[in-house]
Order: sequence, then structure tokens, then C-alpha cells
Amino acid sequence: MSVKKAILVIGAGDSTGGAIAKRFAKEGYIACVTRRTADKLVPLVEEIKAAGGQAYGFGSDARKEEDMVSLVEHIEKDIAPIEVAVFNIGANVRFGITETTARVYFKVWEMACFGGFLMGREVAKKMLPRERGTILFTGATASLRGREGFAAFAGAKHGLRALAQSMARELGPKGIHVAHPIVDGAIDTEFIRSNFPERYATRDQGGIVSPDSIAQIYWQLHQQPRDAWTHELDIRPWQENW
Amino acid sequence: MSVKKAILVIGAGDSTGGAIAKRFAKEGYIACVTRRTADKLVPLVEEIKAAGGQAYGFGSDARKEEDMVSLVEHIEKDIAPIEVAVFNIGANVRFGITETTARVYFKVWEMACFGGFLMGREVAKKMLPRERGTILFTGATASLRGREGFAAFAGAKHGLRALAQSMARELGPKGIHVAHPIVDGAIDTEFIRSNFPERYATRDQGGIVSPDSIAQIYWQLHQQPRDAWTHELDIRPWQENW
Amino acid sequence: MSVKKAILVIGAGDSTGGAIAKRFAKEGYIACVTRRTADKLVPLVEEIKAAGGQAYGFGSDARKEEDMVSLVEHIEKDIAPIEVAVFNIGANVRFGITETTARVYFKVWEMACFGGFLMGREVAKKMLPRERGTILFTGATASLRGREGFAAFAGAKHGLRALAQSMARELGPKGIHVAHPIVDGAIDTEFIRSNFPERYATRDQGGIVSPDSIAQIYWQLHQQPRDAWTHELDIRPWQENW
Amino acid sequence: MSVKKAILVIGAGDSTGGAIAKRFAKEGYIACVTRRTADKLVPLVEEIKAAGGQAYGFGSDARKEEDMVSLVEHIEKDIAPIEVAVFNIGANVRFGITETTARVYFKVWEMACFGGFLMGREVAKKMLPRERGTILFTGATASLRGREGFAAFAGAKHGLRALAQSMARELGPKGIHVAHPIVDGAIDTEFIRSNFPERYATRDQGGIVSPDSIAQIYWQLHQQPRDAWTHELDIRPWQENW
Repeated sequence: MSVKKAILVIGAGDSTGGAIAKRFAKEGYIACVTRRTADKLVPLVEEIKAAGGQAYGFGSDARKEEDMVSLVEHIEKDIAPIEVAVFNIGANVRFGITETTARVYFKVWEMACFGGFLMGREVAKKMLPRERGTILFTGATASLRGREGFAAFAGAKHGLRALAQSMARELGPKGIHVAHPIVDGAIDTEFIRSNFPERYATRDQGGIVSPDSIAQIYWQLHQQPRDAWTHELDIRPWQENW
Repeated sequence: MSVKKAILVIGAGDSTGGAIAKRFAKEGYIACVTRRTADKLVPLVEEIKAAGGQAYGFGSDARKEEDMVSLVEHIEKDIAPIEVAVFNIGANVRFGITETTARVYFKVWEMACFGGFLMGREVAKKMLPRERGTILFTGATASLRGREGFAAFAGAKHGLRALAQSMARELGPKGIHVAHPIVDGAIDTEFIRSNFPERYATRDQGGIVSPDSIAQIYWQLHQQPRDAWTHELDIRPWQENW
Repeated sequence: MSVKKAILVIGAGDSTGGAIAKRFAKEGYIACVTRRTADKLVPLVEEIKAAGGQAYGFGSDARKEEDMVSLVEHIEKDIAPIEVAVFNIGANVRFGITETTARVYFKVWEMACFGGFLMGREVAKKMLPRERGTILFTGATASLRGREGFAAFAGAKHGLRALAQSMARELGPKGIHVAHPIVDGAIDTEFIRSNFPERYATRDQGGIVSPDSIAQIYWQLHQQPRDAWTHELDIRPWQENW
Repeated sequence: MSVKKAILVIGAGDSTGGAIAKRFAKEGYIACVTRRTADKLVPLVEEIKAAGGQAYGFGSDARKEEDMVSLVEHIEKDIAPIEVAVFNIGANVRFGITETTARVYFKVWEMACFGGFLMGREVAKKMLPRERGTILFTGATASLRGREGFAAFAGAKHGLRALAQSMARELGPKGIHVAHPIVDGAIDTEFIRSNFPERYATRDQGGIVSPDSIAQIYWQLHQQPRDAWTHELDIRPWQENW
């Protein structure tokens, strides 16, 4: 790749965001990864560099407009044009409706939906004059339906899906590919290992989603020629009961 | 009706909320109607009373937790048990993604989704010990899909739909009927009359939805016996292109 | 009602079709009910007449074009204009994919989908010049999603839903109301009583759908003024896990 | 690839089926392609062979059970195990509901849905003991919603989608990947060139879907590891208004 290109991954704190950053870095993209605390990004940045890639870690609060604006400005000005942006912040909580505090309901939305809006808008501003770019929002089962205990999380994920669809319809004809992959199953994370050991035991049989498999799908979505763009697809392990 | 029962209508500022209040008042329900400024509710309250019904108007900000909590407390303590609650606040704005300010995106969600959460949760707390009650959230076309210019509004309406579905699944088996009627078409309002005169001219041919027709459907939903509850239905004029 | 009007119910063999016929007959509609064998309709026809209504039973195979054509002709010519038509034939079978014979796959479609097409088309021909009428197709959970063992049944019900939606979009602006109520739960039938006794035991608590409740919803759909038509709604018992 | 593997493409008469066959043949799969008349497959088979691949053309009527059974038997016995099967028969017709003959309604279903059932069942029988394989059903916009004039076509495509979903849920946990890619836009075919010249003129700007792009997505679906399977995705050109 003769021209420098960056991928921005908002929410690279978990294994999925990290795997996506590594996948694109392997293809020559400069990985710009964020989470609230920059320190925790050091291992990921080091891993990418050790593999011959380029990476920058940023402590940035996705819910703060000024943070998002300055982050995108900085990358575009000092690092490289953002060719791909991925919003990957989840906020999976479960409370019955009467136990859901206003604070929780707001915080979940602010993290998992409002942050996506801020990222989407800021990178769209940069991509529009270039008439190119890919914006990916990570969805979940709760993006598709509400469920007991999921008023807050499903609310945020539904809102993010509406954002992705509205942006796709507006920006597609302007050359920007907006997609919303929906992960419908447990992902191979420390959280699943600790809390769902029986589920985790199915990992070697493909019973939980590997972050690398997700990253490969994100890469393929970005590679799609513009005559054949996918906006939405589901991702789940073969044994999943859906 | 020998026992006193109240209907709470959050967002009775427009014709739909008012029509619903009048419909239930005619059946003996004490109509408790709200909008941000109580003064503007006087004509509606007077109209209900003149027809022999009972009504109270409240100036109340649906986005403020303390307002919603004290409103529900007050009605339950001093007026009557809330048998039916209707969330009817819209916030239909249209902006391209790069013109959508963070303030607008947040305000639309706060009004059209967060307020619904606050109402839903507070009335659920009262209805649960009684194992009865009906909660209705008004949906729109934007509840079902995103569209160019609708990132904010569709986001809020998708979130409200997720709330309604999550609450229905949790509260249905506890005796509370939660429904989400979706109005897919222009409603007979001053706004449509002023801004879409050609559309308004089809009113006599049934080309725009009458608030009374919506009110009748809300009444029927509330009347459904619990062996046959509807959670979601669409409402549109016969000539609508959908 | 000063003018004679008929309701045609295709598939009045079960309790739902019968309840719908009785509900409309009570309002003055002449009930024209069909099933494959006319004899079995005698009790239903007698019951309607004993209650002061009018009814005719027809042995008619809904899968045979000539039967449907002549049935509709006969009613329109000799009895009354068909104001309402209800397609209510199910064919709920369950087979794993490799155990599904071509004969079963075809028969299920022929009964539950093709028959609906024949009825819908024939009554539409009569209703179009009058610019009025209601056509109702009964849906089920399998109308919305496929599931293990339901390739044949879900295929037929999905096809029927596509028919209902295509007809609604075409015929709505011509004055004909086409709706697709979806019953998502066990209905109070002999079949449920015999085969699912534990489920049946919840009947008195509203745990299974009463045919009379369905009939009431069909009546309300027919009564909707044309400024506020519903195309699709779900019907389920309060305790249903969905 | 040390072991012989076949891909079966039912409906390789158009450019999409041919492109899929070529894509998999390039990867070493033996392409077994069908259409009603074998003669017309000669150019495709020759093209694959000239490129160093292996291919067989079969005249076979997808609607005839005996044809499908013997075709699958023959390939499995004499050529190679079927690792991938693609059902790619469309039948896009458009008639108003009263102009839709029973013959057309049946034929469209028989071609675009029943044939898919026959293929799906027969290849599933072979794949199940091997606990592996990929089955792909090509969807269209009409798979998702009905529309004026599309009662027949949407009915068939909805039925095919129900089949795909039912099979995916049954066969996924047995190791077979069933997917339903939905092409939502004009494909680069002779038909579009002749009938929609203005649309066709956007081809060089990516305005119509290239069969090669579809083929690439089918290949990627087949390559997905079983911890991250996609069941459904949409494919459309960037400028499509959806």
C-alpha cells in the first residue's frame, strides 16, 4: 500500500476490538485504537508493532464530544486519513425494569449508542469529501429484539442499529460503506471464560465465536467492491440455539 | 364503573394524546394528562369535564426522573390507581448525519425514549402488586427502520420499541399488558394542516389518520382479555404508500 | 343493517373459523362457511340459526380453483355480496427436513397458502368494483420465522404472509382492507385439550387463546375506519413465553 | 486440495450461477451445474475447463423429485462428494393479483421454492453423515416483503427463506452451514442490459451487481469457520435506494 491509511477502532479494550485492529494492521493499515484508559492499550499496540505493523493507542472517552472531535482531527492531521472506522463498545447489563436506575439506563445508552453517533458523524465528515471509507458498528442479539431484563441494553443497541441504517442509506450513494454486523453468540473473552465455564469448554469445537473470525468478516466487508455492499449480517457459532 | 381508575397520558399536547384521554374519560377513567406547560392543557381538561368526565392537567417534564416519580405518586395517592398509562411524546426532527448536533441527538432521545423508560418503570412499580394494568407506547414508521435524515429520531423510536418489547416480555406473565401501536402515516394535526396542505386535503377521504381512530384502537387494546393480547400493530390510512 | 352482506369463512372446521362466523352473524352478516365435508358444518350452521342469524355451509376444497370460483360466484349471485372474507386453513405438521416428503411439502403449501391465493383473488375480483371489503388471512408464529421441523409449515405460512402484504399494498388504495393477524400461542381446541393437557389446564387463567377473543379482534379489524387500518398484529396469551 | 469435492449449482443458466461455479472451480471444486436444457451449459463447462478446472453440465428439472434424487445420487457416486450446494433459480414475474393465474402462482412457487426444498433435502441427506457441507439459497428483495404485483414471486421467495431458516436451525448444530444471501438490486445480466439501459449504464460506476462479486461472497460464506457462521446477509450496489 503506497498511501497511508488508518483504521480507527473505538473500544479496543476487549478481544474483538483488538483482533480487528491486528487484522487490518497486518494489511498495512495504521491501527488507531482507543479505550478509556490508554495504559491498558500498551500490550495491543506493542503486539501490532512486534508483528511489523503500526499502531497508536489513545485514552479517549467515546461519550465526550470534544474527545471524539479532537481524536479524529488528530489522526487525520498527524497520522493518516481514516479509511475504516469501527465502533465496538458494548455495555451489556441485565436488570429487571423496576431495578433499572435512570443512571444505568442513561449510561448504557451513552456508551453503546451515543458514542457510536459521535464517531459516525465525525468520521463521516472526513470521508464525505473523499467519497470513500468504511464505517462498521458492532451489533448484538439485543439489536434485533427486546427481552426480559434488557430494556437498557436492547434500547441502546436498537438505537445504534437505527443509526447504522440511517447512515447507510444517506452515505452509501456518497461512496461510504456503512455496515452493521450482528454477533449472536458468546465471544471468546475472559468474561465468558470466568463466568460461563461450561460454555467456554465448547471453544475447541467452535462453540464460541473467535475474535479473529469476527475480524476476518470485518476485513471482508471492507474489501467488498461497491457494486456489492452488505449492510447487515449475522455471526454465530454453529451450535447456537437461535 | 364502581371503582375509580385513572389513565395517565404523558404528552397530551397534541391531538393524539388528547383524543386518547377523551376516549377513556368517556368510559369513566379519570384522565390525568401532562405536557411541559400545564396552562396549555386547560382546554382539554375543560372539554372532558364539559362532557361529564373527570380530568386533571399536569405541567410535568417527562425527562426529569423526580417529576415522573412525584407525578405517579401523586396520582396514585390522591386521585386513583393508574390502570392505563400512555407514552405519547414524539420528537420528529430531520437532519443529515453531519448536521445532527450532539445536543439534538441527545434531546430527541431524552424526550422520545428516556421519558418512556421513566414512565414505564414508575407505573410498572404500581401495577405489579396489583397484577393488572395496560401500558401503551406510541410508535412511528421510524420505530421500524432508519432512513436518511432520521438517525436521531429513528434512534429514539427504536429504543422505545426495545423498551416496549422488553417490558412486554417481562411484565406480561405478571398480568400487565404492554403494547406498541405503530402509526405509519400523517395524523390529523395542525402541523400537517399548515405544512402539507395537499396531504391535508385528503382528510375527508380518509387520507390522514384521525386521532379519534387511534384512540379507539388504544381503547380496544386495553379491552383485550388476557388470553388474547396484542403487543404490536400498525395503523395507516388506506391510501398510504408503504 | 338494511342491506344484505355475507362473510365467507374458508376453513370453518375448527373452533376459530366457527367463532368468527358466529361473531359476524351476530352483527347481521350472512355466514357462508366452508370445509371439505359439508356434513360437519351442520352443527355450526344450526347454532347460528338458533341464535337468530343466517348461515350456509358448503363442502368445498379450497385447493381447487373451480371450487373456489364457483363458490364465490354462487354466494355473490344467490346469497349476498361478500363484504368480508377470512382464510383460516392451517396445516401444522412437524417433520425434520430429511423426513419431509415432497407430497407433504406440497400438500401443506397447497392447503395453507395456495388456497389463500385462490380465495383472495376471487373475492378481490368482486370487491374491486365496489371499492370496499375486508380480507383476513390468519397467520401463526411460523409466519414470522422458520424453525427446526417447520420447513413445510413455515414455508406455507411465509408465502401466505407475502400474499397478504402484496394484496394489502395493491388493494388498500382501492378501498379493500387486507389484514394478517398472527396468532402466537395455543388456541382452545380439542387438539390442545387432548394432546397438551397441562397447557389446557391454564385455560381458566387465560393461558390459551379463546376463539371468541380472536373473533372479536377480526370484528374490530373489519370495523376500522379507512383512515386507520391495521395490516398486521400479533395475538398471544399473557403468560406466553415469546 | 487432495480430496475431490463437488459444488452443485442448481440454476446455472444465468450469469450468477455461472459465476459461482467458476469461482469455486478456481479453488479446485468440481463444478456440477444444471439448468433445464443441458446444451446451453456447454459454454460454461468449456470455460471452466479451459481455465484448468473441472465441470459437468446436467439437463435437470429442479421441480421433479426423481430428477433431483438421481442427480444428487449420480454426482455423489460417480463424481465427488457434494461439499457445497447452491440453489439459484429465480422466477421473477409481476402481475396484479386479479391477473395472476393459478398456473403462474403455482409455477413460480414450484420453480423458486419447491425446487429449493428438493435440492436442500437431497444434499442434506448426503451431508448429514459427513457432518459438514454448505447449502446456499439465493434470496431477493421479495424474500423480505410483499409488494403490489409480487404476490406470486414474493410468496415463493418467502417460502424459500423459511426453508433456509428452518434448515439452518436444524442442520447447523449437525455441522452443516445453511445461508441465505439476499441480492437487493439489479444484477449485471443480459435481461437488465436489454430492458433497463439507463440502469445498465451505471455499471461502470458500480451501479449494478456483478455476478463475480456475488460469487466472491458465496465463497467467503463457505470459507467461514464454524465458530462464526453467517446465515443471512444483504447485497446491494452502493447507489441503491432502499
